[in-house]
Amino acid sequence: MRCRNILLSADEMPRQWYNILADIKMNPPLGPDGNPISPDALAPVFPMNLIEQEVSTDRWIDIPEPVLDVLNIWRPSPLTRAFNLEKALNTPARIYIKNEGVSSPGSHKPNTAVPQAYYNKIFGIERLTTETGAGQWGSALSFACNQFGLECKVFMVRISFDQKPYRKAMMETWGGKCIPSPSMETRAGRDALEKNPDTPGTLGIAISEAVEAAVSDPTGKTRYSLGSVLNHVMLHQTIIGLEAKKQFEKINEYPDIVIGCAGGGSNFAGLAFPFVHDKINGKNIEIYPVEPKACPTMTRAPFVYDYGDTSRYTPLLPMYSLGHDFVPPPIHAGGLRYHGMAPTVSQLIVEGLITPKSVSQTDAYKAGLLWARTEGFIPAPETTNALAQVVIEAEKAREEGKEKVIVASFSGHGLLDLGAYEKFLSGQISDVVLDEAEIERASKTCAGHPEPRILSSRKS
Amino acid sequence: MRCRNILLSADEMPRQWYNILADIKMNPPLGPDGNPISPDALAPVFPMNLIEQEVSTDRWIDIPEPVLDVLNIWRPSPLTRAFNLEKALNTPARIYIKNEGVSSPGSHKPNTAVPQAYYNKIFGIERLTTETGAGQWGSALSFACNQFGLECKVFMVRISFDQKPYRKAMMETWGGKCIPSPSMETRAGRDALEKNPDTPGTLGIAISEAVEAAVSDPTGKTRYSLGSVLNHVMLHQTIIGLEAKKQFEKINEYPDIVIGCAGGGSNFAGLAFPFVHDKINGKNIEIYPVEPKACPTMTRAPFVYDYGDTSRYTPLLPMYSLGHDFVPPPIHAGGLRYHGMAPTVSQLIVEGLITPKSVSQTDAYKAGLLWARTEGFIPAPETTNALAQVVIEAEKAREEGKEKVIVASFSGHGLLDLGAYEKFLSGQISDVVLDEAEIERASKTCAGHPEPRILSSRKS
Repeated sequence: MRCRNILLSADEMPRQWYNILADIKMNPPLGPDGNPISPDALAPVFPMNLIEQEVSTDRWIDIPEPVLDVLNIWRPSPLTRAFNLEKALNTPARIYIKNEGVSSPGSHKPNTAVPQAYYNKIFGIERLTTETGAGQWGSALSFACNQFGLECKVFMVRISFDQKPYRKAMMETWGGKCIPSPSMETRAGRDALEKNPDTPGTLGIAISEAVEAAVSDPTGKTRYSLGSVLNHVMLHQTIIGLEAKKQFEKINEYPDIVIGCAGGGSNFAGLAFPFVHDKINGKNIEIYPVEPKACPTMTRAPFVYDYGDTSRYTPLLPMYSLGHDFVPPPIHAGGLRYHGMAPTVSQLIVEGLITPKSVSQTDAYKAGLLWARTEGFIPAPETTNALAQVVIEAEKAREEGKEKVIVASFSGHGLLDLGAYEKFLSGQISDVVLDEAEIERASKTCAGHPEPRILSSRKS
Repeated sequence: MRCRNILLSADEMPRQWYNILADIKMNPPLGPDGNPISPDALAPVFPMNLIEQEVSTDRWIDIPEPVLDVLNIWRPSPLTRAFNLEKALNTPARIYIKNEGVSSPGSHKPNTAVPQAYYNKIFGIERLTTETGAGQWGSALSFACNQFGLECKVFMVRISFDQKPYRKAMMETWGGKCIPSPSMETRAGRDALEKNPDTPGTLGIAISEAVEAAVSDPTGKTRYSLGSVLNHVMLHQTIIGLEAKKQFEKINEYPDIVIGCAGGGSNFAGLAFPFVHDKINGKNIEIYPVEPKACPTMTRAPFVYDYGDTSRYTPLLPMYSLGHDFVPPPIHAGGLRYHGMAPTVSQLIVEGLITPKSVSQTDAYKAGLLWARTEGFIPAPETTNALAQVVIEAEKAREEGKEKVIVASFSGHGLLDLGAYEKFLSGQISDVVLDEAEIERASKTCAGHPEPRILSSRKS
């Protein structure tokens, strides 16, 4: 019998995360005055132990034992050979996915939610606030807070809140609180509703609400938690790629192409960064972050300093951005509706180490459906963007007659997104492509830095 | 680090199913005239290769390679030590679950859906019909038919169809068709609607519809598929218990108590039958099928010959039954709303080899919530019935100060049942306990056999 799933035992779990800041040089976050901010300035928002991780340039950082213990509920996750998809595509490519949908919250998100909850807990914090787009992150943080005995409050982008009613129930099952954003609970929310009472909401606004709710707690026992974009989030996710590398070693295989979907960038980074490390050290490998054409941050927006949220609460980050008040069209892959991109991922694009791709919504769902009907598991809408690129690469391999090895991150399952599949099957999902003027207008809003600053800074 | 999950590799998968009919003697199914029916009489309903399995008394039956290949998408499933639950209950018991929620359809059901689709395919059948209660079985059969290129039509009990809209989308994602039952598509459905237009539906009616839709296809290329109750279904599910035994061997452990929820009986049987085999051969072990108090087939109904469906299309089966026209109250564990119990499971009760238990709906959800908040995965409503019994046994072990080893089948995840958790959390779920008169009235309807016939027939 063919063996589909390459497994690792618990004692083969990586004991350290890989920190890409050891291998590339980054431009610092700036305050509103345009000067670099000190780590201390972030102290009202994040606990100091996580701020230290955010700025660390150590290549390897130990994973605490209590974090490993919770991750072991589902980790190590399987690396799966997609024999059936290969056959359906009649491709000589060997296709693998790293399945993060096996986690209890159903996505890669708990890989960072668990350590974030842990570090907050040992720092003496009692509750976390956050935002969520598709609901994956809010579910993951609710789960993680529950494991460590923290309270959790989630501001969920309204369009996803309405499209995915089960998400709220999931968060509540783990003891979290979930409210649609914009809400009346924060100034940021009230401002947004005043401006546009019918807004579908954005991740940018929801971030503003969650940050405000954290820093305005007079007890000082609340902090904010972010599910993507930041350096320490990317760091925590590298367990995905580190496991994958061990799994490839077991079968004497190494990928030619690494693919991940990218909204804020953390799922892509989780799989890809350990391979980027190899590429920096001479490996010949293509690495593709994939975004939807409806929110083309990496492929069509400029590289600038911009805020991470709509209300300009965050520092200015060096990243590809459509502008912090860009409102992406209401596509179903809610987790990919973010105006910016992780500074680390952005920097790798600037340095030519990775090559962004974009796919249309219908191609993504087509690939997702093909996956479900060959490989069985139903992918999250976000994941289907990566799968669409897998299909493109597998078909290219067929045309070129090349035995390429492709690996993609399967960021999560789509069991709470089945309504989107139903819409796709009944022809109710179409493509959204932004026109040039819209992109230009949006990217002009990047506050204070109308001229994109290209920041090539590869460490020698 | 403690190791939670005891894993098997693909080449450690069992290659044969265990057939309990080698170890117990069963009374035969009867025709409406009260005489045993010949296997041939079932030929319009099932393909002959499955009928042969249904009546086989061979102890071990080979699992075909193409079946193993599909099961390997998620199998072997993990055996998981519930350290966190043990700690929360402060029990000396060691608690394990066999997690069937990891399958692509999310439950144990594909363990039989896959071989059933396979045997129908090689017999030349082109489409299958079936019924589904909670939706787990319909999803599993849609998935399995898709894997082998068969069409699939699912009659879904209306109350579940309304409570769980994502189920239809799931079946359609795998290419299946799903319609609420009773429907206007069959005589059985039209009769039921005429009698009571507002009926929540029952598994009994839905079975009648599916059987009728299969046998009335003039091309002869349609067959019916049943997700529980029958001998060959129990057979296919034994892969659960056979894997679990291998996993216990790996850690030098053996259970004192085996627990599974039981609606038609297949999840319970899957885990328990291989252990029943050991018990017959002298092992000292307690084995508990668990049902909801709202549908107390095993614990309060008589052992009789009764029909498997409302319209009396099936043969008369020797089983515990509340009567084939019993309409169970609309509890959320839709998969446990069946009037009867698998003849094999029933016979084991008669012979004293297993001991049925019943739990209340609120105790079940309480246990489910406790599980989610300790062990992370959100259980299906059916599964919570087994978990409630686990809690009872773990507390008993604490009181008695005994280091019992408990294993339960985690029949599926509850990600498509989150609405039920939301209702429970907001206090909208209460207990339903039938009164004595209701049970008596219901069981009197067991057609043609008003006097329960106790059929103790243990093979020497």
